Amino acid sequence: MIKACVFDLDNTLLDFMRMKKEAVEMAVEAMIDAGLKIKKEKAIEKIFKLYEQTHIEDQKIFDRFLEVETGHIDYKILAAGIVAYRKAKAANMILYPHVRFVLTELLRMGLKLGVISDAPRLQAWTRLAEVGLHTMFDAVITWDDTGIRKPNPEPFLAVLKKLNVKPEEAIMVGDWAERDIYGAKEVGMITVFAKYGDTFGTKNSGAHYEIEDPLELIEIVKKLNENQ
Amino acid sequence: MIKACVFDLDNTLLDFMRMKKEAVEMAVEAMIDAGLKIKKEKAIEKIFKLYEQTHIEDQKIFDRFLEVETGHIDYKILAAGIVAYRKAKAANMILYPHVRFVLTELLRMGLKLGVISDAPRLQAWTRLAEVGLHTMFDAVITWDDTGIRKPNPEPFLAVLKKLNVKPEEAIMVGDWAERDIYGAKEVGMITVFAKYGDTFGTKNSGAHYEIEDPLELIEIVKKLNENQ
Repeated sequence: MIKACVFDLDNTLLDFMRMKKEAVEMAVEAMIDAGLKIKKEKAIEKIFKLYEQTHIEDQKIFDRFLEVETGHIDYKILAAGIVAYRKAKAANMILYPHVRFVLTELLRMGLKLGVISDAPRLQAWTRLAEVGLHTMFDAVITWDDTGIRKPNPEPFLAVLKKLNVKPEEAIMVGDWAERDIYGAKEVGMITVFAKYGDTFGTKNSGAHYEIEDPLELIEIVKKLNENQ
Repeated sequence: MIKACVFDLDNTLLDFMRMKKEAVEMAVEAMIDAGLKIKKEKAIEKIFKLYEQTHIEDQKIFDRFLEVETGHIDYKILAAGIVAYRKAKAANMILYPHVRFVLTELLRMGLKLGVISDAPRLQAWTRLAEVGLHTMFDAVITWDDTGIRKPNPEPFLAVLKKLNVKPEEAIMVGDWAERDIYGAKEVGMITVFAKYGDTFGTKNSGAHYEIEDPLELIEIVKKLNENQ
């Protein structure tokens, strides 16, 4: 009997990379407009390389970019970039199609909902609040809650405990096979690979199910529960 | 001969307190909606009291508010507040009427423009960028540039140096008599009190001029320069 459905956040519920690309592009255009001398494509490429060096949540990325690029921080240029980034981020923080409908439907079916995210706690929560999902989940486990990232069993066990369900009663949905799927399988959860959010071109996710659209989740739950 | 016009930022160019009030109100409503048990008016009052204890730029105000109020931080509530605050801030970060026109007109008249703000550097610059003024000023001196607040002569001397004008060739416009007017007068600048931004009910600003509308600035500059 499936009693809970747990989701990864970025690239599973939220179209995170689309937001990131849009926001960085708008930031670069604004910095060029404010006086930065660089080709737009070159700058975008360099910023994503800098993200790789630290992490995609780096909050000081434009400071670092300007320092590497120009040897100092011109605050006129930095501020123009940050403001444009924020505006584009707010406008592009969007859920994949059908996500909101599916979550509501799962609630109607009596399931509990959870999130496991490797993002910092405040970032994960503000993203949920930005898309108006912050009241929907019974458990949200972020990086700060366990201090260990997926595929380590810790965050999976933490969410199961908070939801008060056994591993075999819970589905884990995620776009990152090595982290979301591998980790959830190890603790005994049913796994669903969110192919629509996959950015690696994963060949074999190893998941029990693979979906191209969040809608398919409803049928999976129905089928798993009708034989109980 | 007046060659430059220097402005205080918050409550002189930007209607800062209006933004702050709107943003805090929206944040409180969102936190209540997310589960915080408190009366709206009570919460707003408490938050502004907390601002007084630290400073109006306090970036952790809702963390502190929730800790004082509930003994811990519920991130669902915090995130709801922060997201609502940001949205209201972006929507309400506005210039006083006529500010944009006056700045453009002063540029046309050949004057250099400056800003002196006691706000942190990044906040001052992002506010300018949010209202699209970041390319207008020849000199922007923030708290981080001198480490000393108005009315200390340091920031006034710094802006004059950067603008390359003598004190008597520059006008200082500000809403805070004890800081903007007193400090500018001490170094020998012409002073204009922005009565429209005054939140203290100042009786005697001590300024050379007092204005109810930024538009009046143009006439003041014209008159000062026609006798040269």
